[in-house]
Amino acid sequence: MHRIVVVGGGFAGVRTVRRLAEVPGTEITLVDRTNHFLFQPMLYQVATGVLSGGQISPALRSIFRRQRNVRVLLSEVDGFDLERRVVKAFGEHEYELPYDTLVVAAGATHSYFGRDDWAVLAPGMKTVDDAHRLRSMILGAFELAEAAETEAERQAWMTFAIVGAGPTGVELAGQVAELGQRILASEYRSVDTSQARIVLLDSNARVLKTFPERLSARAKADLEFLGIDVRLGVRAVGIDPEGLDVKIAGEPARITAKTVIWAAGVKASPLGAALGVEVDGAGRVVVEPDLTVPGHPEVFALGDMAAVPGVPGVAQGAIQGGEHVARVIAARLTGAPWPGPFRYKDKGSMATIGRRRAVVDMGRRQLTGGAAYFAWGVIHLAYLTRWEDRIEAVWRWAFTGIGGSRRERMISIVSLVPETTARSVILELRRRRAERLDQARP
Amino acid sequence: MHRIVVVGGGFAGVRTVRRLAEVPGTEITLVDRTNHFLFQPMLYQVATGVLSGGQISPALRSIFRRQRNVRVLLSEVDGFDLERRVVKAFGEHEYELPYDTLVVAAGATHSYFGRDDWAVLAPGMKTVDDAHRLRSMILGAFELAEAAETEAERQAWMTFAIVGAGPTGVELAGQVAELGQRILASEYRSVDTSQARIVLLDSNARVLKTFPERLSARAKADLEFLGIDVRLGVRAVGIDPEGLDVKIAGEPARITAKTVIWAAGVKASPLGAALGVEVDGAGRVVVEPDLTVPGHPEVFALGDMAAVPGVPGVAQGAIQGGEHVARVIAARLTGAPWPGPFRYKDKGSMATIGRRRAVVDMGRRQLTGGAAYFAWGVIHLAYLTRWEDRIEAVWRWAFTGIGGSRRERMISIVSLVPETTARSVILELRRRRAERLDQARP
Repeated sequence: MHRIVVVGGGFAGVRTVRRLAEVPGTEITLVDRTNHFLFQPMLYQVATGVLSGGQISPALRSIFRRQRNVRVLLSEVDGFDLERRVVKAFGEHEYELPYDTLVVAAGATHSYFGRDDWAVLAPGMKTVDDAHRLRSMILGAFELAEAAETEAERQAWMTFAIVGAGPTGVELAGQVAELGQRILASEYRSVDTSQARIVLLDSNARVLKTFPERLSARAKADLEFLGIDVRLGVRAVGIDPEGLDVKIAGEPARITAKTVIWAAGVKASPLGAALGVEVDGAGRVVVEPDLTVPGHPEVFALGDMAAVPGVPGVAQGAIQGGEHVARVIAARLTGAPWPGPFRYKDKGSMATIGRRRAVVDMGRRQLTGGAAYFAWGVIHLAYLTRWEDRIEAVWRWAFTGIGGSRRERMISIVSLVPETTARSVILELRRRRAERLDQARP
Repeated sequence: MHRIVVVGGGFAGVRTVRRLAEVPGTEITLVDRTNHFLFQPMLYQVATGVLSGGQISPALRSIFRRQRNVRVLLSEVDGFDLERRVVKAFGEHEYELPYDTLVVAAGATHSYFGRDDWAVLAPGMKTVDDAHRLRSMILGAFELAEAAETEAERQAWMTFAIVGAGPTGVELAGQVAELGQRILASEYRSVDTSQARIVLLDSNARVLKTFPERLSARAKADLEFLGIDVRLGVRAVGIDPEGLDVKIAGEPARITAKTVIWAAGVKASPLGAALGVEVDGAGRVVVEPDLTVPGHPEVFALGDMAAVPGVPGVAQGAIQGGEHVARVIAARLTGAPWPGPFRYKDKGSMATIGRRRAVVDMGRRQLTGGAAYFAWGVIHLAYLTRWEDRIEAVWRWAFTGIGGSRRERMISIVSLVPETTARSVILELRRRRAERLDQARP
């Protein structure tokens, strides 16, 4: 049996494992630190109350239920020993997973450009827990505005600053505007939520900088039509509980906002550096053209944590990377010829703005407005994993779009705990439990 | 304007406010420490992955969107000054809410019979956060069984002890059995989840002790048919991370189980005692026959936190109490005659066992098996707040019952943090943020 260990159950890892289903003689172990896949492109809808977490995060086990050559393990990977060919992981215990082929697709996390202390003040959105945290923060801010004692305080709670005008920042800004203007507008008595101020700032000169200029301009106009205050060429230099210090063309300025959301930077998972090979400035592994790690043809790195010229850090890059890696592994095991280097086919990119507008870039074709929004919906439905997810998404969208209500609006105090803190709390609890256990022994 | 403050947005508080919609000259403030109502009778389905939290917890604001005499506030109530007629609350700041009429319906919480240190080891299920915590614990236990290194450890992770065989304990036991035997059975490679052991223990001589004996016996038989190990006359005397110490007829015994769930005792919210009037052994306010507080006809206590002879601590007791309180208040304000003392109409009680069986007690009529399960479904659908909740519940039940899958299976590390700890973490974060703010000032 050829032992394949896949680290990471995102788009890249799941596609790799799926495509290896037909390859005989393989024994695949998929390791992830969560128990679920996550359809990240719709995560902003969890953060703003449209969908539940479960609707876009099917359990990895249930995805591979019928693929009998796959074993799924919930564990945190600590590192690798490429010489001994083992993955070092931690579930309930520390353990080692031996492999013949290793596929590392651990994705990316937020980058605060060296200011990790900002993480608590301006959380980002990469995981379902993150999305629930943002939901509690956003809905909680409207609640605290309603209860505020002074007009200044009310204004500060009613101001939302989003740092970073890429797709995530643009989509969150549009949805927060929708929340204030439509969904919540009739529910408050002391505040007019339609007056909520959303500031979307970016150090670049345009929004959606990876899109064609025409679409960036259209997206900016659409955002401004929704009343969003788009500030370009603005760099955050300080974040505190009351707002941001920024620099506009070198000049310091201040944005007062009790809620700050981070959508600015990503860096690769630290597991890239843990491979002990060359990484780029964003921590991504510099891979060979066939996505293998230099000097280790039995090790692949792909998705958001691999640096491949011309491949953007989007779902398509990960999906196509996974297909390529599975092809290379299958060719080796079946003795077929080398499938050649990874060739990325750009299928375009898109972002929604509020509930009726989007921009879609498909290379030659570009869509904007309602047509783009419709295309966004159709394409994202197609990429959802299960047909029941599609039905539930359409149903929930109908509620939001036509009914003007959102189904998932729970504010959870527990969700507000930063994940790092939660982890340390759990480790502390585990230690205390172990101690109590020790004391209980004679 | 007559100022009415309602503390608590559960069945009792929501029904009171709803019934006061038509009473002119009233200004109602509904205070709750969460932003949502919670349909508690279906909470076990959130804890076991059938429903999402949002599907049974509509935002209080959205419920009262169109009732213009109602203001909803997200705040923690700290206490009362019945002489000055103010409620002391804490949102972003401490503040006071003056009232002419006060309605206190803050519900109940877990009682560990003086062993509050058990709360971390054996969490209960009262809030949506609790249900998410149990979901992460239950699904996480199967994950750790799959990764276990020894057979003994695997067995310990595959054993679930539920303390308390009332409706909550019975329903959770049935659903965990379903999970292991049907939903998860084909998904694991190292463990056979259908061999999961579920121990349901109670110090009483029968399960569902508030039900007629015949139904208790039938429920026990149904539980045992599902393979659940029902242990009656068994009292927990110690809980640790590896299991429980119990006493059976005075003899000590041991149950090894890595997962222990508490469904044994409830006590009234501490806000009952905070009223400064007489409370019973469970902390419930001893009220007058019309649900007013002795010596304070302008103050009402009802629902799970009021002791009324003959009224059980179930949703119907709270709903009917709310209707009565609204009638008394309306009569006073409109000059109508006193509606008389609160008369509880017993509409029966019910509990489900697994996915096809239930017991229903409607006084003269009793149902068991599939008919009871069907009745349970119809009645619970009828009591859901929104029609869209009904459609989504039926849809999800079809998945679980026919499709054998569950839609909400996310394990969240953050959810595992005990709420008390989460609160203290948040207070600590707030303190640190305030400090940093102080330092930033010149």
